[in-house]
Amino acid sequence: MEFMRIGARDQETPVVRVGDDHFDISSVVSDIDPAFWADGPARVTQALDTGSLPKVNVEGQRIGAPITRPSAVICIGQNYAEHAAESGDPAPEQPIIFFKTPNTITGPYDAIGIPPRAQKFDWEVELGIVIGKQAAYLESREEALDVIGGYLAANDLSERDYQSVHSGGQWSKGKCVKDSMPLGPVLVTADAIDAHDLSLSSWVNGEPRQGSSTSDMIFPVEDIVFRLSQYMQLEPGDIISTGTPKGVALSGKFPYLVPGDVSEVEIEGLGRQRQEFFQVEVPAGVGADLLLG
Amino acid sequence: MEFMRIGARDQETPVVRVGDDHFDISSVVSDIDPAFWADGPARVTQALDTGSLPKVNVEGQRIGAPITRPSAVICIGQNYAEHAAESGDPAPEQPIIFFKTPNTITGPYDAIGIPPRAQKFDWEVELGIVIGKQAAYLESREEALDVIGGYLAANDLSERDYQSVHSGGQWSKGKCVKDSMPLGPVLVTADAIDAHDLSLSSWVNGEPRQGSSTSDMIFPVEDIVFRLSQYMQLEPGDIISTGTPKGVALSGKFPYLVPGDVSEVEIEGLGRQRQEFFQVEVPAGVGADLLLG
Repeated sequence: MEFMRIGARDQETPVVRVGDDHFDISSVVSDIDPAFWADGPARVTQALDTGSLPKVNVEGQRIGAPITRPSAVICIGQNYAEHAAESGDPAPEQPIIFFKTPNTITGPYDAIGIPPRAQKFDWEVELGIVIGKQAAYLESREEALDVIGGYLAANDLSERDYQSVHSGGQWSKGKCVKDSMPLGPVLVTADAIDAHDLSLSSWVNGEPRQGSSTSDMIFPVEDIVFRLSQYMQLEPGDIISTGTPKGVALSGKFPYLVPGDVSEVEIEGLGRQRQEFFQVEVPAGVGADLLLG
Repeated sequence: MEFMRIGARDQETPVVRVGDDHFDISSVVSDIDPAFWADGPARVTQALDTGSLPKVNVEGQRIGAPITRPSAVICIGQNYAEHAAESGDPAPEQPIIFFKTPNTITGPYDAIGIPPRAQKFDWEVELGIVIGKQAAYLESREEALDVIGGYLAANDLSERDYQSVHSGGQWSKGKCVKDSMPLGPVLVTADAIDAHDLSLSSWVNGEPRQGSSTSDMIFPVEDIVFRLSQYMQLEPGDIISTGTPKGVALSGKFPYLVPGDVSEVEIEGLGRQRQEFFQVEVPAGVGADLLLG
C-alpha cells in the first residue's frame, strides 16, 4: 500500500493512494504515526475492502511528510563506498549512526531555510526505512526484514561546517537544522516494494548530482536493522535513513546550496521531491560571537 | 515547584510535591510531557491555590522518570575539563552534542539491563535541562535562561566500546542502550533552583566515584541553550543532559559496571538515584557475528 499525508502543516490528513485515487483514512487511523503500526495497515485494508473510505481530491493541496512524530530519526553515515571516499574516509566496518531531531521532518515540496551564516548546506538523497514493529536483539536478517514497515525517500540536508568544524567531530550537530529532512511524497509498505535495487538520484537547479542504486549500499536494509537492534531498541514509526551515494557538495566538485537554489531527489518507486531554498533572517549580531562560518 | 511521576511503568500519575505532601495533578494536566509546558505549571499553581488537588500517598509506589516523551534527548560531551582529560581529549571549544533515543529514559530506581557481550558499561552523573519553550536563534544568554523549564538528575549510562570502537567515532551508538537514561526522582522548575553551583556525585557499590559542581562546567546551562539554538530548534519537553565530571570507568581508575553492581547518582536539590544492574540474556549466538566486544 501507499500512504500520504495531505494538507496544511501539522494539520495533514492521512490518505491511502490506490492507482490515481486517494482515500481519506482518518476514520480508521488517527495519523501515520508510531501508533499506526499496531494495526493501521490492516484497518485500512479492511476499510478499502468494504468501500467505506471517502475519496479525496489532492490536487492543489500541500503534500506533507508521509509519517509524523517518530521517536527517533536515525541516520547511517557513509553507507556507500564512493561517498565515504569523497568524504575522505575509508568504508566503515560497521554502520555509523548519527541523529536528526524529529523537527527536521518536513514535506517533500516545502521551502527550506538556510541558517544565517551557514556556508555549506548540502543535499543527500537517501532511502528511508520506517520501522513497523518494536525490535531489540533480533536473531537474524530475515527477522530484521520483517520489522520493516515501509520505505520512503529522504533528503538528509546537512551543514558541513556545523557537522565537522563546530562539532568536535560529532556529526549530528550539522544534521539538525529545522526542516532539513524532507520526507516523501509517499510511504510504500514493505510488502509492496523490494528495496534492494532501487535507483536513487539528485539534482540541483536541474543539473544531475547523485545517481546510484540501493544495491551499492555497504550495509543493506536488513543488515542495518539487524545490527542496530543489538545496540538499541527500535520503535514502531522510527525512521532509519540509510546513507547517501557520492555526488554531494562536500566532494568539492559542486557548489553548496544558496538561497534560490532548487534541489530535487528521487528514488525509484518512492517518488520525487523538490525543495527551493531561502535565507533565514535573524536580527543583526545574533550568534555572531559564535564560530558559525 | 517540584514534579514527579508515580506508578507502574507507562502508567505513571503526574504529581506535584509540596513539602512532604504529594498531590495528583492528572485532573489539570495530561502528563509531564511536551504539551505540559504550554500552561501546565500555571494550571497546577492555580489548582494548588484553590485546594482542588487530591493528596496521594507515594509510599511503596514506583517512582518513574519525572518527564516523558521528549522529542529529543540531547547530550553534551566533555563539558567538564577534567573529564575531557580523563577521556584523552582536549577541552572542547564549542559544545559537542550526541543523542540518546527517548526509550533510554527510565525511572531513577529501576533495574537496568547490561546488554549481552557488553564489557564497558559506565556511569555518568549529569545535570539535565528540561526545555520549557520552543527556542531557535536565541538572541542572548538571558533569553536562553528564560526558555529553561526545569532541571533534573540524570545518569547517562554509556557502553564505551559501542561508543568508540563499534561506532566509526560517532558516540551516539554507545548511548542508546534501552533504559540507559534514568531521570529524576524529581523535576524542579527553573524558578525554584539556581543550577550554577550544584554539587553532583556518583557512587558504585557505595564507593565514591564522581564529585564535582556544576560550576565546573565549561559551557554553563544558558550558554549551552543559547549556542544549541543557533544549530537546531529546541522544543518544549526536550532534555539536554549537560555532561559529566571526571571519575568514570573510562578513566581506567575504576572497573566497569557488572551485573549485581549498584550505581547511585545525586545532584544537590534534585535528589538521588539508585540502580541495580542485571544481565540481559539472549539466545546463544544472537549478534555473535558482529563486533560486540
